[in-house]
Amino acid sequence: MKFRVIKSALVDAVSQVSKAVSSKTTIPILTGIKIAVDEDGLTLTGSNSDITIQVHVPVKKEDLDQVFVEKIGSIVLPGRIFGELVRKLPGDEVEWITNDQFQTTIRSDMAEFQLNGLDPVEYPRLPYLSTDQMFSISADALKSLIRQTGFAVAAKEARGVLTGVLFQLENGVLTCIATDSHRLSKQQAQVEASPEVTLKNVIVPGKSLSELAKTLGDYSGYVDILIAENQILVKTDEFSFYSRLLDGTYPDTNRVIPERGETELVSSTKELLQSVDRASLISRDGRDNVIKWTIKDGKVEVHSTAQDIGSVSEEVNAKVNGPEMSISFNARYMIEALRSIESDEIRIQFTGAMTPFMIQPTDRDDSLHLIVPVRTR
Amino acid sequence: MKFRVIKSALVDAVSQVSKAVSSKTTIPILTGIKIAVDEDGLTLTGSNSDITIQVHVPVKKEDLDQVFVEKIGSIVLPGRIFGELVRKLPGDEVEWITNDQFQTTIRSDMAEFQLNGLDPVEYPRLPYLSTDQMFSISADALKSLIRQTGFAVAAKEARGVLTGVLFQLENGVLTCIATDSHRLSKQQAQVEASPEVTLKNVIVPGKSLSELAKTLGDYSGYVDILIAENQILVKTDEFSFYSRLLDGTYPDTNRVIPERGETELVSSTKELLQSVDRASLISRDGRDNVIKWTIKDGKVEVHSTAQDIGSVSEEVNAKVNGPEMSISFNARYMIEALRSIESDEIRIQFTGAMTPFMIQPTDRDDSLHLIVPVRTR
Repeated sequence: MKFRVIKSALVDAVSQVSKAVSSKTTIPILTGIKIAVDEDGLTLTGSNSDITIQVHVPVKKEDLDQVFVEKIGSIVLPGRIFGELVRKLPGDEVEWITNDQFQTTIRSDMAEFQLNGLDPVEYPRLPYLSTDQMFSISADALKSLIRQTGFAVAAKEARGVLTGVLFQLENGVLTCIATDSHRLSKQQAQVEASPEVTLKNVIVPGKSLSELAKTLGDYSGYVDILIAENQILVKTDEFSFYSRLLDGTYPDTNRVIPERGETELVSSTKELLQSVDRASLISRDGRDNVIKWTIKDGKVEVHSTAQDIGSVSEEVNAKVNGPEMSISFNARYMIEALRSIESDEIRIQFTGAMTPFMIQPTDRDDSLHLIVPVRTR
Repeated sequence: MKFRVIKSALVDAVSQVSKAVSSKTTIPILTGIKIAVDEDGLTLTGSNSDITIQVHVPVKKEDLDQVFVEKIGSIVLPGRIFGELVRKLPGDEVEWITNDQFQTTIRSDMAEFQLNGLDPVEYPRLPYLSTDQMFSISADALKSLIRQTGFAVAAKEARGVLTGVLFQLENGVLTCIATDSHRLSKQQAQVEASPEVTLKNVIVPGKSLSELAKTLGDYSGYVDILIAENQILVKTDEFSFYSRLLDGTYPDTNRVIPERGETELVSSTKELLQSVDRASLISRDGRDNVIKWTIKDGKVEVHSTAQDIGSVSEEVNAKVNGPEMSISFNARYMIEALRSIESDEIRIQFTGAMTPFMIQPTDRDDSLHLIVPVRTR
């Protein structure tokens, strides 16, 4: 295996695949990064037991030569050292030779590294995913779906399927749902798919999705998503992102979403968020981080109190319809929901002091957040 | 106690004193911040068992009124909550009322906080330091002294006086020395002091100095330094920084500093630093992070190898005088010394493969770093 590569292209690729490489793994070879070179260019792969990221560095990019292949081949190098080494190489171009004993020489300017590599045949093969269950979505829409639902998954592994986000696809509409049973977030987006593609119970681990969002970064083109029995693949020209799926059946959440509320308020997302954030400074030292809203004509009174510490009171202007009411809830759930909403204005509908209330942006109807209130003491 | 204050001035002061406040302390009242107001303005104090930071917010700053005093007084408020609360207040001006039961009302725009405070008489008094042992130094020179020596103190508490930096003052020259017995850093600076002020064995904890550097921040005026039996006070118009001193006698380090070397090299600080940094990628996975230099005519060959991982070789251009030699040392010591040096070019003098070598900037003679080599295997 012998090639030269423009350093910056190698640095970018290594930093992408490194996100999937863990130093703590029961499979030693997965602490490594696999580097393969063929006539098309370089392919780097990093993996852990949950996700795999593969990045391709083509020989030419926008008419610029970036990989100069002399002899094809592949190798696995220790991930952490290789990643740092590449970033710290002195020159602009890297010369690479791997011999038959997997010893790899990496030269750049006046520096020469010798690294002991591992046999690439030991590296796990990537799963094959057919294009039967495939759809396309803009990267921005996908990032928005992750941003609006990912925070609401259950944090504890013991919660099983609730640690993942449910992906459902029907009639070209993708619906993502996450809940930890105290709150629920749901968002929909149009996708490009043949009419016969339908997804019912695809559950993607929340952690994988937050890594996917990082991998997507600023990418704003379309991505292809392929689904198999226990794998999801998100694919662009530049990278492939694989994640395992969660086993089990996601609960039916449709029945918990109320039709409409009795009392309704419309207010500024930012002002409500900041007031809840301030109130939670006091409440979060209490055990349950509970704050109280009193919804009156023209305003929301925000109140929170914690023994030994003190209290906070604040008013936020709001358009209110329906009877006056008081409701208590976990401030963190509200903060996370409001932070995820990109619209300036939200509508909140309340069905009662003890039943879930529904938060929605006023300018779109494909997104909602549900929070279960807390019994007021 | 009743006053109003411009929020930004309060935010700045709180963020400064918060650096001294620890949530882990055996003296509960030290988790708080003391706020006192009198005719001159506000004074905030934060403290832990090592350092105390006091910041003054005068009633007027550059002709702008910033504190409006109605009734003088003082109070201690829980540090962490108070700090976050102040940062998150909505308005530009803060209204403050503390009643006789130490209950404090903080109002800003539509938000009102009630905090339970503590009796300020319980707060420890600041030590009194006479101006007998006093000198003045520019903040930039003081920051440079800290930067060039602070990293070389011993990390382990068990090393006693070696966890501090020695301050010596004689004939208007301040000498700072730090060593952990494997390396030594020494820097001098001119100060303004009466001729009779002499310091011999003043040992300031390394941790206190790094906090002091943060407190000094961008401040570039002169600071007054006052020394007492077991305290140092660094003082400007805006803040006072107190630290305890370390007990014990600092060892005499003069005898370990060689007169001059047999082999001498002059090279670029940055190029040497980067090459050592790269070599340490390999060596630091070994137990002792040792790299080897071979100093030849016109160059330094940098080499490092670690079993199972690989090796690195590199050449750096250098002007060399004296016989060719090889020397091995801990890469981290070299990296930290070279990073602290602000000059573009350095001179390194070697007295032998097993005796300390001396690193100095070529453009000044008030600064040196000493590293003890490691026996080559």
